[in-house]
Amino acid sequence: MAAVTLNVSTLKPLGDRVLVKIAQQDEKTAGGIFLPDTAKEKPQVGEVVAVGPGKRNDEGKLIPMELKAGDRVLYSKYAGTEVKLGSDEYVLLAERDILAIVQ
Amino acid sequence: MAAVTLNVSTLKPLGDRVLVKIAQQDEKTAGGIFLPDTAKEKPQVGEVVAVGPGKRNDEGKLIPMELKAGDRVLYSKYAGTEVKLGSDEYVLLAERDILAIVQ
Amino acid sequence: MAAVTLNVSTLKPLGDRVLVKIAQQDEKTAGGIFLPDTAKEKPQVGEVVAVGPGKRNDEGKLIPMELKAGDRVLYSKYAGTEVKLGSDEYVLLAERDILAIVQ
Amino acid sequence: MAAVTLNVSTLKPLGDRVLVKIAQQDEKTAGGIFLPDTAKEKPQVGEVVAVGPGKRNDEGKLIPMELKAGDRVLYSKYAGTEVKLGSDEYVLLAERDILAIVQ
Amino acid sequence: MAAVTLNVSTLKPLGDRVLVKIAQQDEKTAGGIFLPDTAKEKPQVGEVVAVGPGKRNDEGKLIPMELKAGDRVLYSKYAGTEVKLGSDEYVLLAERDILAIVQ
Amino acid sequence: MAAVTLNVSTLKPLGDRVLVKIAQQDEKTAGGIFLPDTAKEKPQVGEVVAVGPGKRNDEGKLIPMELKAGDRVLYSKYAGTEVKLGSDEYVLLAERDILAIVQ
Amino acid sequence: MAAVTLNVSTLKPLGDRVLVKIAQQDEKTAGGIFLPDTAKEKPQVGEVVAVGPGKRNDEGKLIPMELKAGDRVLYSKYAGTEVKLGSDEYVLLAERDILAIVQ
Repeated sequence: MAAVTLNVSTLKPLGDRVLVKIAQQDEKTAGGIFLPDTAKEKPQVGEVVAVGPGKRNDEGKLIPMELKAGDRVLYSKYAGTEVKLGSDEYVLLAERDILAIVQ
Repeated sequence: MAAVTLNVSTLKPLGDRVLVKIAQQDEKTAGGIFLPDTAKEKPQVGEVVAVGPGKRNDEGKLIPMELKAGDRVLYSKYAGTEVKLGSDEYVLLAERDILAIVQ
Repeated sequence: MAAVTLNVSTLKPLGDRVLVKIAQQDEKTAGGIFLPDTAKEKPQVGEVVAVGPGKRNDEGKLIPMELKAGDRVLYSKYAGTEVKLGSDEYVLLAERDILAIVQ
Repeated sequence: MAAVTLNVSTLKPLGDRVLVKIAQQDEKTAGGIFLPDTAKEKPQVGEVVAVGPGKRNDEGKLIPMELKAGDRVLYSKYAGTEVKLGSDEYVLLAERDILAIVQ
Repeated sequence: MAAVTLNVSTLKPLGDRVLVKIAQQDEKTAGGIFLPDTAKEKPQVGEVVAVGPGKRNDEGKLIPMELKAGDRVLYSKYAGTEVKLGSDEYVLLAERDILAIVQ
Repeated sequence: MAAVTLNVSTLKPLGDRVLVKIAQQDEKTAGGIFLPDTAKEKPQVGEVVAVGPGKRNDEGKLIPMELKAGDRVLYSKYAGTEVKLGSDEYVLLAERDILAIVQ
Repeated sequence: MAAVTLNVSTLKPLGDRVLVKIAQQDEKTAGGIFLPDTAKEKPQVGEVVAVGPGKRNDEGKLIPMELKAGDRVLYSKYAGTEVKLGSDEYVLLAERDILAIVQ
């Protein structure tokens, strides 16, 4: 089997998981989101880069996802698994751990 | 994709979450609520500024929200995730962690 | 939006929550309940002043409340959230944490 | 509203709770139950004095109680809330924490 | 109400509980079970002396018991509540905590 | 009632439990399984000697077992209850704690 | 019964478990996956070598697996049971603990 490269385009979340690119917290804009100047603790924000097919319920039925690639989101900092790909940091988390969309 | 500003009008709660503006505790009125003078420990009060679409049950059916923007609420101080936007503090919490409406 | 006063008449419990006025424990009668003289540890008693609409089950169906305003109740001291309104203390707790009615 | 007296006849358990009069452990008979002479650790025994209407399941259907007033029971000492009424001690516990009937 | 004696014939388990007479561990036979000579840690064995009517599921339907009086059983030592009746020791445990039958 | 001997042929697992003979870890073959020479931590392997009838679901329906006597299995070392019968060691564990079959 | 050898071809996962060959973390390619050069903490990656038949739900219905042998996966390092077979390390984990596929 040919080798593949682990990067953001080859990583496909499973179940109801979402792959989020973590916004750099030291910039004025975080992942395309302008952060308010006065915030002391900057919120955990990022951009969805891939979503899983959804969770199967106990009957095997697929519950579709609400989120899609491109959504900017606010998420709980205690959730998910961080993955570093090149110089960027990502987090894989369940859709229920995404708190809000930034529209 | 154009950058967006993270503020109260661009933040859309997901699932059964509610975005509440935390009332300033050192004023006589907190978020439009007159607090009783004699209270030693001021209750956690705030105003709902946005609500999510509701929670999906295990069959994928959407359970609608009871609360709406504008509701003044009392909430449990151990629940939710605080977010600072400009000079104001907000909390994102599940509707079930809202204890009561102040009418 | 006009300001409202946080007091017992403006506080409306949500879900299956009950607002109970905590009986003063140093009186012979607690919230209209004569306590037995010999009790060393006085029980947690109070009067229901407001009830929520009931809990929604996983299908979204409302399960009605058993309790109503005016009921005198005995409740578990480890349950609920205490709220001070003026000189009176109240507790907001789920109906399932009310142990018994005093009729 | 007229005051009521907190005693065994005015206390009505809620849900699937049972009010049990705790048998005095230093007598040869405990709540009408002759205890075996040789027992080192006397079992927790008592008499049911009142039962709740039953628990409602998630559909709101009432599941009726198995126990009734007058049943002598053995119960788990780590369960329930003790209440002293006059010189007698009682415990309010869920029916599922009653281990056995003494017939 | 006439007094009753707390002994093995008057104790009726509730729900899915089983009353087991604990086999004496210092004999070659434990409750009618010959233990292997070489065992260092003797297993927890005993004889079922009474069974409850079964557990009710969330719809109120009675799930019948698999065990019956007379069954010799092996059980988990961390489960149940021990009761001493005369010179004999018993344990009241849920049927799911019985590991195996000794036939 | 005649006495019975506690040994592998008289022990019948209940519910979804499985009786597994633990393979001796200091041999080159463990319970009929050749272990790889280089393994530092030898895996927990054994042979199923008896299976229960299956677990009943909440409706009382029996869910049949996947495993049968004779299956060689790999299991989680933190699961189950060990039982010594003669010079052999066994473990009683739930079928869901069996990780894999060795075919 | 003839002895069998415990190796990757004789190990058949049960239920919804997956057998994953853990990629060597000190190579530039891990299990056929090119890891990014700059990553400080290398992600847990591996290749699925066998999958179980799926989990049975509470009605006994088999929920089929999403993964198949040959899939390269990213998994949670706190999940599963590690097994060493010869000079290679494997992990047996539930499909829900696989975070993503590397395509």
